[in-house]
Amino acid sequence: MPFLQKNFDTVGSKHMKMLWFLSLALCLMTDIRAQDSDSMVIRNIFQTALTKGKSYEVLQQLTAIGGRLSGTPQAAAAVDLMKKLMEAYGFDKVWLQPCMVPRWVRGEPEVCLAHTKSERIPLAVTALGNSEGTGPAGLEAPVIEIRDKRQLDSLGVQQVRGKIVFFNHPMNDAELNPFQAYGKAVWYRWAGPSYAARYGAVAAVVRSMTFRVDDYPHTGVMIYNDSFPRIPALALSTAAANRLSSLLRTDPHLRLFIRNTSYLAPDSVLSYNVIGELIGTTHPDVIITVGGHLDSWDVGSGAHDNAAGCAHSVEAARLLRTLGIRNRHTIRVVLFMNEENGGRGGITYAAEAKKRKENLLFALESDAGGAMPRAFGFSGDTAAIMRIMQWLPLFKPYHIHEMKFGGGGADTRHLLGYCRVVSSFLPHAQRYFDYHHAATDVAEMVNKRELEWGSAAIAALIYLVDKYGL
Amino acid sequence: MPFLQKNFDTVGSKHMKMLWFLSLALCLMTDIRAQDSDSMVIRNIFQTALTKGKSYEVLQQLTAIGGRLSGTPQAAAAVDLMKKLMEAYGFDKVWLQPCMVPRWVRGEPEVCLAHTKSERIPLAVTALGNSEGTGPAGLEAPVIEIRDKRQLDSLGVQQVRGKIVFFNHPMNDAELNPFQAYGKAVWYRWAGPSYAARYGAVAAVVRSMTFRVDDYPHTGVMIYNDSFPRIPALALSTAAANRLSSLLRTDPHLRLFIRNTSYLAPDSVLSYNVIGELIGTTHPDVIITVGGHLDSWDVGSGAHDNAAGCAHSVEAARLLRTLGIRNRHTIRVVLFMNEENGGRGGITYAAEAKKRKENLLFALESDAGGAMPRAFGFSGDTAAIMRIMQWLPLFKPYHIHEMKFGGGGADTRHLLGYCRVVSSFLPHAQRYFDYHHAATDVAEMVNKRELEWGSAAIAALIYLVDKYGL
Repeated sequence: MPFLQKNFDTVGSKHMKMLWFLSLALCLMTDIRAQDSDSMVIRNIFQTALTKGKSYEVLQQLTAIGGRLSGTPQAAAAVDLMKKLMEAYGFDKVWLQPCMVPRWVRGEPEVCLAHTKSERIPLAVTALGNSEGTGPAGLEAPVIEIRDKRQLDSLGVQQVRGKIVFFNHPMNDAELNPFQAYGKAVWYRWAGPSYAARYGAVAAVVRSMTFRVDDYPHTGVMIYNDSFPRIPALALSTAAANRLSSLLRTDPHLRLFIRNTSYLAPDSVLSYNVIGELIGTTHPDVIITVGGHLDSWDVGSGAHDNAAGCAHSVEAARLLRTLGIRNRHTIRVVLFMNEENGGRGGITYAAEAKKRKENLLFALESDAGGAMPRAFGFSGDTAAIMRIMQWLPLFKPYHIHEMKFGGGGADTRHLLGYCRVVSSFLPHAQRYFDYHHAATDVAEMVNKRELEWGSAAIAALIYLVDKYGL
Repeated sequence: MPFLQKNFDTVGSKHMKMLWFLSLALCLMTDIRAQDSDSMVIRNIFQTALTKGKSYEVLQQLTAIGGRLSGTPQAAAAVDLMKKLMEAYGFDKVWLQPCMVPRWVRGEPEVCLAHTKSERIPLAVTALGNSEGTGPAGLEAPVIEIRDKRQLDSLGVQQVRGKIVFFNHPMNDAELNPFQAYGKAVWYRWAGPSYAARYGAVAAVVRSMTFRVDDYPHTGVMIYNDSFPRIPALALSTAAANRLSSLLRTDPHLRLFIRNTSYLAPDSVLSYNVIGELIGTTHPDVIITVGGHLDSWDVGSGAHDNAAGCAHSVEAARLLRTLGIRNRHTIRVVLFMNEENGGRGGITYAAEAKKRKENLLFALESDAGGAMPRAFGFSGDTAAIMRIMQWLPLFKPYHIHEMKFGGGGADTRHLLGYCRVVSSFLPHAQRYFDYHHAATDVAEMVNKRELEWGSAAIAALIYLVDKYGL
């Protein structure tokens, strides 16, 4: 221990040495005791979550409402439910933060039929969020299959005009991280239709964003580029996409009939973020935000996406309160509205915080499903993040082995550069896109213990952030 | 770098120094290149498994047979299927290793009715493996609910005689490791019935071994203690157990009717382990074993338990062969028969290996389901295990962060002390007991990518064991 020895020599007298020794010992003991006590608190959090947790109950209540598309009665019911729940939990302050949200209406069940020479083959389809309808009579046209964007460029107006563009670009299953695979493929869903319209397409059908091959179409938002006509845009299930592709090989002149009556309502609707606080004892005006989003697509009941994140957030705060942990900073649960098709809740929350010059210390978003926790990601103040990363050993007994740079989701990204550290909760994601935006995203597909584990992991991280600051 | 410097000084001349330097550089480069090349091979294994893997196809074929209880035509069909599959894959040698297995017959669908003062309430039930039947007329008796073994001891013969003992001991959901929770509770299933018979019980019904509360009873083996009468033993679903417990609170004198016609056939049946080898190029007589078990309970189709382990094992070998990796030692895939109710396959494999004085280097068992890989466990030669643990960094990009002491499962434990290192593949297990030995253990509950991930992880470990030896 040459370093210690050297310091010793500068101390001087015997007594000083003794004093130095004692204080060192005290320091070490305190440190060990702090670590011990933290690991005991975290153990307590996990055991309470697993034995007396309410995560799954919350998830079941939210999903029982059904899909919670912004501006619908279901979304309003979710606001009401979660406000009452946080009040019943005895949170110190619960309120609604108004925000105006778009209202997209799906209309009647969509139809898609492939008309070959001999057959009419129904294909599983769902309108993409924001899509305009075909009109009640539907629309029929020849189809052109596109594997990638450049192919469309090279075909140009002459070969595309008057046709339905069929984007058959699969998520790349060689990607280890499903979110990366999604990120690279999702252009075809959100921008593809307008890109097809640029070349004169009359509609677009897009292969669903999932690794699985099954017959559930996955919806999701698409964005019109207003330089081009707003053509109808629908998602085909992966099985239907494979079917259509194979039909086109034998019959390139087949015609596709599609019918959807969806539309974007002309006026925005008043809705709310639901916010609940546990007021801090020493720094009440320094805020730790934890949240997920309340709204969901309508085809399923938004269990992983994102009743899970709402359950995680509310339960993390409830666990700390239940265990008698008095938070020094204010812990604020924010259940965002309209993440799926406009992001107005996240935008409003950030704008209000900035307007009021709120002191935002930390903001964690859970919007990656309710599966087994794996990691946390962080963006913001590097020194603060390095401090957080030193807590990793406390999480390893709970199978969380990674804390990495890169945090913030669709709702908290507006806090980047303002809030000290913005964080993402990262569960295992290999199953996530099996359910994402599909009819299969229901409570039954979320495992109770995995969900509870997530709530506990988030509660543990918030406990440490609150205790030690950043 | 004082250590380096010191060595330098002993070398002497300038040329010697130069030579020393060069060889050091070469060493370092080789080492880095070896690591690089290993990580590239492993990357290749994973990408092939995820994009062109056959894991899920194997699982689907095996589960399509249905439950594969030892001694049944389904078990024989599984033997046939897997033998042909390994032959079709071009394994160097495929053969059947005979073993005699018990044949337990479930008989007719089981019945359980709670007769209260006013009602007859059907309860979901399934006979436990090895259980004798009630006879065709069934059996009716009062019920005594037991939470733990000591309670039964204190009640004694006077209070238990003539009754049906209802073991309502739940798996402890405070346990982080579900296998630990199972291990602590499963006594009530495998030994509980005979323990009740010791006090004169006429039958036993046991709460299913799962964290979930649902209406699927979970079967599993029980063992009679031949000092006591062989009373019928059945598992209640957890929901039924809760129901019965609550009925008993209001009506402690209710009578339970049970009926099952199961029996153990008097004679053993000839069956087989299915074995396939990739013969090693330099050490053909040094064996790396990798396996899972072919048989399963009959109530589901044995997907996690253990078509997954069979798929992992066969696919791991196929991946190495497909990628042109020539193994130095012999890689031997062993699909064990009769793990569930006798373990004759595992016993036979170990006995034969010892009899033939085979040189067994490493044996990995996958019998913990097809979920996302988490860890490997190892038992045996400590120095060899320490060497294996140095490979952990190669697995971290694939979310495998733990290599720990403690390996071997029901089929490979007979190799402990004989095979150099015995290993367990450990996927995440929070969902495992949702399906274990229940009607829900079907292919649909196994995620394709998670299963493929497991095959790749096992292939990567075998690749390293084979390349570097132990």
